[in-house]
Amino acid sequence: MDISSMRFSDRLSSISGSAIRELLKLTAKPGIISFAGGNPAESALPNEQVAALASELLLEKGKVLLQYGLTEGYAPLRESLVTYIKQEFDADVPFECILPVTGSTQAMDLLCRAYINPGDVILVESPTFLGNTQCMRMYGAKLVPVQSDDDGLDTDALEDAIKTHHPRMLYTIPTFQNPTGVTMSLARRKRVAELASEYGMLVAEDDPYRSLRYFGDSLPSIKSFDKEGWVVLMGSFSKVISPGLRVGFMTAVPDLLRKCVVSKQSSDVHTANLNQAIADAYLRNNLLAPHVAEICVGYRAQLTAMLDALSRMPRIARYTKPEGGLFVFAALPEGEDVAKLFKLSCERGVAFVPGTPFYPDGGHENTMRLNFSNASVENINKGMRILQDCLTALY
Amino acid sequence: MDISSMRFSDRLSSISGSAIRELLKLTAKPGIISFAGGNPAESALPNEQVAALASELLLEKGKVLLQYGLTEGYAPLRESLVTYIKQEFDADVPFECILPVTGSTQAMDLLCRAYINPGDVILVESPTFLGNTQCMRMYGAKLVPVQSDDDGLDTDALEDAIKTHHPRMLYTIPTFQNPTGVTMSLARRKRVAELASEYGMLVAEDDPYRSLRYFGDSLPSIKSFDKEGWVVLMGSFSKVISPGLRVGFMTAVPDLLRKCVVSKQSSDVHTANLNQAIADAYLRNNLLAPHVAEICVGYRAQLTAMLDALSRMPRIARYTKPEGGLFVFAALPEGEDVAKLFKLSCERGVAFVPGTPFYPDGGHENTMRLNFSNASVENINKGMRILQDCLTALY
Repeated sequence: MDISSMRFSDRLSSISGSAIRELLKLTAKPGIISFAGGNPAESALPNEQVAALASELLLEKGKVLLQYGLTEGYAPLRESLVTYIKQEFDADVPFECILPVTGSTQAMDLLCRAYINPGDVILVESPTFLGNTQCMRMYGAKLVPVQSDDDGLDTDALEDAIKTHHPRMLYTIPTFQNPTGVTMSLARRKRVAELASEYGMLVAEDDPYRSLRYFGDSLPSIKSFDKEGWVVLMGSFSKVISPGLRVGFMTAVPDLLRKCVVSKQSSDVHTANLNQAIADAYLRNNLLAPHVAEICVGYRAQLTAMLDALSRMPRIARYTKPEGGLFVFAALPEGEDVAKLFKLSCERGVAFVPGTPFYPDGGHENTMRLNFSNASVENINKGMRILQDCLTALY
Repeated sequence: MDISSMRFSDRLSSISGSAIRELLKLTAKPGIISFAGGNPAESALPNEQVAALASELLLEKGKVLLQYGLTEGYAPLRESLVTYIKQEFDADVPFECILPVTGSTQAMDLLCRAYINPGDVILVESPTFLGNTQCMRMYGAKLVPVQSDDDGLDTDALEDAIKTHHPRMLYTIPTFQNPTGVTMSLARRKRVAELASEYGMLVAEDDPYRSLRYFGDSLPSIKSFDKEGWVVLMGSFSKVISPGLRVGFMTAVPDLLRKCVVSKQSSDVHTANLNQAIADAYLRNNLLAPHVAEICVGYRAQLTAMLDALSRMPRIARYTKPEGGLFVFAALPEGEDVAKLFKLSCERGVAFVPGTPFYPDGGHENTMRLNFSNASVENINKGMRILQDCLTALY
């Protein structure tokens, strides 16, 4: 039978793949100044340290690391995560409620697989992280956006949405949100935890950027206010050690975690032991905190350079002023479309990502996401001048 | 709201997790002689070589390996796989039809996600690999077993099943099958490829054991007879380098591969670059073939010891005589139940896996899977004597 007659599953019929990963390929020209991705700076990737750790770990306990591991994760990493989650997220989560995963993207996948039926409503910030909304859609979830402002998710709007839509889950990135860089206030974090408990709504708290704080004080996680277990915390080592190693973690009450483990059995059996052991070594040997402190110095300067440049660009109508993370979100005046700007700036050697794909309902063609972690201060200054020139030429 | 009111997704409602992974935990007592798992021998895990490679790769191109990679996979590995698939599987598969995955378990997951709708029929061998049938069930597939014999899947029965059930897919492990160790004959491999093409049925050819051949001659893959692209080949480095690294691959025609890539974006973004680069180094530097040759020497002796022992066990009614792989499948006389044997032998320090969980429709309580790769010849002799004593005591 002619191979062109091949049909695919319905669950993918409306999903064309990450628009952003496709855009990134377009913008991956040599020499381009990229504000497009979410990549760590090259200098932030500790390859010499990881080389030493990998070699040491493989020589010392390679027979264990190269053998099959438990789906539940590498026990030493789970132990270390108990302390790490307490220190970093202010939350008490016991060993048996922690599951190491193959990057926190897998946490979302396992959670949807274990918890979401087709037609279930998931409340999301708008804009929000595209990769995870694609995942939710693949499991048939109906996404309902909830209004946000400069203090994150509007919790009054959230309660209204809960009453109207009876959601199964809220997905939120409370700290240095992707794509906006906005951080949810302390009061709202408490309120989200209360609403979750009151209405029996699961909260997927995706918090991969929290350690990358350059200004202001750290806030406790939503999970830290969770008394009953309705909050699932998802974290990652991608932004603080390496995205290429694919190690993250999730927490859940035992019954839900068990379902996620069963889902993981048939996803990838377990996360690679060596990669888990490397993350564990960073935690266990107190290597993570000094490494993060070091990379934050550079990122702070890069964020400052980008915000300074934006303050001198009159055609930028508004932009966020994050205290950390990797992204600034900016907008041209209402009615403008950044598509023209995207085309011209790419031609002139500067890439960014249009904001539209981050909105579950589309629209907002005047918005754009600017990443500052993967360009030097010099290139940020140069790139933002080119953007300014493009704006002057176009509008 | 009380957390005990939490409900989970319907797709997991009938799935309790891998019975075998649970059994393995029960049998993981110190000092036990285990014929239970599918683990490589400790001596077969090249931890010193992997340590040297990992260190070298991370020092030489660690900035690339620790950064985000493409979902499509690490390009050097995809290149190396073109040659490897030609040499090892006798099949011509171009670069763009190859996707590295996070262990070949992920290949099955991505394939089901991209191709299977709830209610679709998948034909399977009976018995077959439990991990993958669990995956198929999670996507709502209806599994229909097809009869096999000592030459593998009965292709006349297969054609009848195709006509009756209009399956979307056939799942087969043609070489040193799990759990039976049986290998599909050359004529049947050709016939499976013909039937796939004739009826427009996808064939998932799962072939992770083929390099572990201790007797007889290698047979070409089903994929090698596939002219149109209906055969998806799934391979793994778990049995020949390390399961703990989680690197495998799949092949598919470009349209289907694209759907698998979209599925992988929201599963784990990409397979860890370091792990892919280690597998690539084994292929590129011609390290794999000598390593496999070396481990086959040990495995050949282990298989021989196990088959010799079985030939001296009159209460074993029948058993397979594999030419490679990791497993022998044995049966007590019809009507007996190995559950009693399992209990007593575990008490006496020998573990194996009952055959029932491998049968999609259950039953066959008299059967058992015996793994020989993870016990020394001495322990195989000792363990099989204990099994014989248990049989004498029980039946």
